[in-house]
Amino acid sequence: MERIELSPIGVVESPLTDRATAPKQGDEGAPDAWLVFQEEVLEGLDGIRAGDEVIVLTWLDRAHRDVLRVHPRDDLTRAEQGVFNTRSPDRPNPIGHHVVEVVAIDGPRVRVRNLEALDATPILDVKPVLGRRGQR
Amino acid sequence: MERIELSPIGVVESPLTDRATAPKQGDEGAPDAWLVFQEEVLEGLDGIRAGDEVIVLTWLDRAHRDVLRVHPRDDLTRAEQGVFNTRSPDRPNPIGHHVVEVVAIDGPRVRVRNLEALDATPILDVKPVLGRRGQR
Repeated sequence: MERIELSPIGVVESPLTDRATAPKQGDEGAPDAWLVFQEEVLEGLDGIRAGDEVIVLTWLDRAHRDVLRVHPRDDLTRAEQGVFNTRSPDRPNPIGHHVVEVVAIDGPRVRVRNLEALDATPILDVKPVLGRRGQR
Repeated sequence: MERIELSPIGVVESPLTDRATAPKQGDEGAPDAWLVFQEEVLEGLDGIRAGDEVIVLTWLDRAHRDVLRVHPRDDLTRAEQGVFNTRSPDRPNPIGHHVVEVVAIDGPRVRVRNLEALDATPILDVKPVLGRRGQR
């Protein structure tokens, strides 16, 4: 099949730097973080406000792409599963999926709550969570 | 910033072929569809069962990538918004995000309900919806 090229729209700034000790999900003690967007996409943020819940898609650039089976949550007592049945970062196309609340916006910098992505993780896309404020 | 290369893990088979008339969201009358996975990633599906709710990420290959502002839902009576505050397929990295229920699995073919993606849309990733059957 064809190959697909993406270009990051921004980058995560977070105190998390170590995959081994980072929380596995945002609601498991992940810190607040900044999403820092590139100048050329800033218009695309128009309408996003503090209090909004958004889906952030990231590129998990420290993941292993040749993995198809894992022990869920790295728990060796649990049977191996296919990666598509887990949220493991290791998978053929390691796209991170994070649902976060926007807490502040400062120009190209958007502050969000409880993001488990590591510092310097590229951002691919941002989408509204549907079902708030009507369909968008 | 760096460029990122993805390779599709499969493809959508759907009766939907025309973007102009396709439903905008899965719960707006979208039909059932098949997800047809490539041989080399089949192991990654292990553990997914009929009845599961999954997130499917697709590559919206007929989208326009140079768009940063749209009228939500193509409704010209609504004010323009930044694309990251909408679910418009047109956006810098047009990744489709679909929450669907698995209804059947037949080898490399997974049948899902209410998918608004067009026929032949490349599939990038599949993830479980969290909060069912415990954390994965």
